[in-house]
Amino acid sequence: MEKSVSPFLNACRCEPVDHVPVWFMRQAGRSLPEYRAIRASASILDAIKNPELACEITLQPVRRYGVDAAILFSDIVTPAAAIGIGVEIVPGRGPVIAEPFRSASDIARLRPIEPEIDTPYVIETIRTLKRALDVPLIGFAGAPFTVASYLIEGGPSRNFTHTKALMHTDEPTWFALMDRLADLAIASLVSQIEAGADAIQLFDSWAGSLSRRDYSYFVKPATARVLAAVGATGCARIHFGVGTGELLDLMADAGADVVGVDWRTSLTDASARIGRHHALQGNLDPALVVAGYEPARRETEHILREGARHGGHIFNLGHGVLPETDPDVLARLVEYIHSWDPDGRQ
Amino acid sequence: MEKSVSPFLNACRCEPVDHVPVWFMRQAGRSLPEYRAIRASASILDAIKNPELACEITLQPVRRYGVDAAILFSDIVTPAAAIGIGVEIVPGRGPVIAEPFRSASDIARLRPIEPEIDTPYVIETIRTLKRALDVPLIGFAGAPFTVASYLIEGGPSRNFTHTKALMHTDEPTWFALMDRLADLAIASLVSQIEAGADAIQLFDSWAGSLSRRDYSYFVKPATARVLAAVGATGCARIHFGVGTGELLDLMADAGADVVGVDWRTSLTDASARIGRHHALQGNLDPALVVAGYEPARRETEHILREGARHGGHIFNLGHGVLPETDPDVLARLVEYIHSWDPDGRQ
Repeated sequence: MEKSVSPFLNACRCEPVDHVPVWFMRQAGRSLPEYRAIRASASILDAIKNPELACEITLQPVRRYGVDAAILFSDIVTPAAAIGIGVEIVPGRGPVIAEPFRSASDIARLRPIEPEIDTPYVIETIRTLKRALDVPLIGFAGAPFTVASYLIEGGPSRNFTHTKALMHTDEPTWFALMDRLADLAIASLVSQIEAGADAIQLFDSWAGSLSRRDYSYFVKPATARVLAAVGATGCARIHFGVGTGELLDLMADAGADVVGVDWRTSLTDASARIGRHHALQGNLDPALVVAGYEPARRETEHILREGARHGGHIFNLGHGVLPETDPDVLARLVEYIHSWDPDGRQ
Repeated sequence: MEKSVSPFLNACRCEPVDHVPVWFMRQAGRSLPEYRAIRASASILDAIKNPELACEITLQPVRRYGVDAAILFSDIVTPAAAIGIGVEIVPGRGPVIAEPFRSASDIARLRPIEPEIDTPYVIETIRTLKRALDVPLIGFAGAPFTVASYLIEGGPSRNFTHTKALMHTDEPTWFALMDRLADLAIASLVSQIEAGADAIQLFDSWAGSLSRRDYSYFVKPATARVLAAVGATGCARIHFGVGTGELLDLMADAGADVVGVDWRTSLTDASARIGRHHALQGNLDPALVVAGYEPARRETEHILREGARHGGHIFNLGHGVLPETDPDVLARLVEYIHSWDPDGRQ
């Protein structure tokens, strides 16, 4: 792959592109029949540990859609699982932790990760993918807050009461936990980059549950440390969370080259909040893809216009592809986005 | 009750107050042992239909906390249930619809409501409450979009795919549905006001799932019609949804006197977005109340300062009281808010 001619990598740096690059969060996954066919018997974590399977799953949407980037088939709990935190990914629910973290003594369970030993399958998957791909490969990790929320709540949460109680009532433990999780994310991301990942996305999926004050004080410092470590490698950094419209400037300032935006915030508003030094990624409502091609295309046209006004735009959904999505709608959307003429914009 | 001396009603109109008024969404409910004691045997919808029980539940938090307003014990699906839409409120889940709406023919199921005949218990509860209360009583209804989302999805939803598909693929049906639901909300609210409600809150709880474009085109017109009908009575109108930071100006413009804000959006940002002609309500993270008094008080102090800078501020949580909340923390918070000295603000 010639990095110099990748629209995706150029857009990450707000450099000129010959077409708007596009990929989809969860482009590999349950919406694809070819995914359901080959993952039928394996759990998600087992599939991740099988480089041949993980490669194939990563490649499926690249073949089918012609997207401008691949994203490694893995999960944000992969590193935690690899160092012995009991975790299972329950279909339709998400990661479930066998023994949730509740006190300072639990932090010792987060030993340093040695990616070559603990997650050799991730490294092998990336190396194999690099030989097969002619588009950039995105590696990723969970940001400290979001991983902490799973460890503390024991699984997906609605109100994050235990997580917020810990941060507000025991700062030393909270920051020690953030510190370990930042180290975990850094080691994982750097090993992915060394193996060949061309860009990384740091998922702080649930940061949108926090007020600006809580995010700034309790979360941003650890995230900034992760993004700085990745930045030192020269690798492009995308940072994304759901419902983070109020945090976009803080997330950009934490050290993102690209800020992911969900559909609740218009790219116009996002642009005003983060300024012109960061690219934007987003932000089609995944439910509109389920609604059908024409609703999705109409909204995509608006989004492309807004993105063009910002400069530095990677098209994506505002959250992951929903399982009930018709892959043909996504395929047609990619065609539409690739053929869209920015000079025709209003 | 002397309306002229109600800090709550004054704040609704951005008029001077001698202390910041406070009430809590879901102040009546599972967090109170006295509520759990008397509702033990009755379903929520049965309790709503029992004026004696509904009055007592409405009064419990007023007695315990000394809040500046009571909110009628009812539910946003009460009118729909009363006209024969099969609905059950499942504890821990929410309203579940026996036969979800999926096509144009379902709209006929929403016949006009006659509140004196269909919900006489609501009217009786309000009349009884008015004799017992010395603070204003807030009536309420669900906004057309949020009620539609329950009818269409069949219950609480994560992605609102069926609802969004209907609005984007069958506009005539969508707008016919919005129209019926607006009529339902208007009839219910006007009857509550005639019975004695001093203010109303229109809950568009899930509007935050919509982009600005979708909200403006598909939702705002019906909401504006409801708020205009209430405005014609002279009754103060609060409008609230969760995660609606990006929609606050549109929700204010739909005809709200008071705009409810959740904790994700600072009152400072909310103030900048809606301007000085609307009061603000909010916006303490309910999880911080679960964390304990001191975390909640610290954040409350920030919020009170931001609210004072706006002018016209009703203190509230950013969403409902969580079931695991310690009522003593809320009681102490009310004391703190009532004794807070705005002249000490920064």
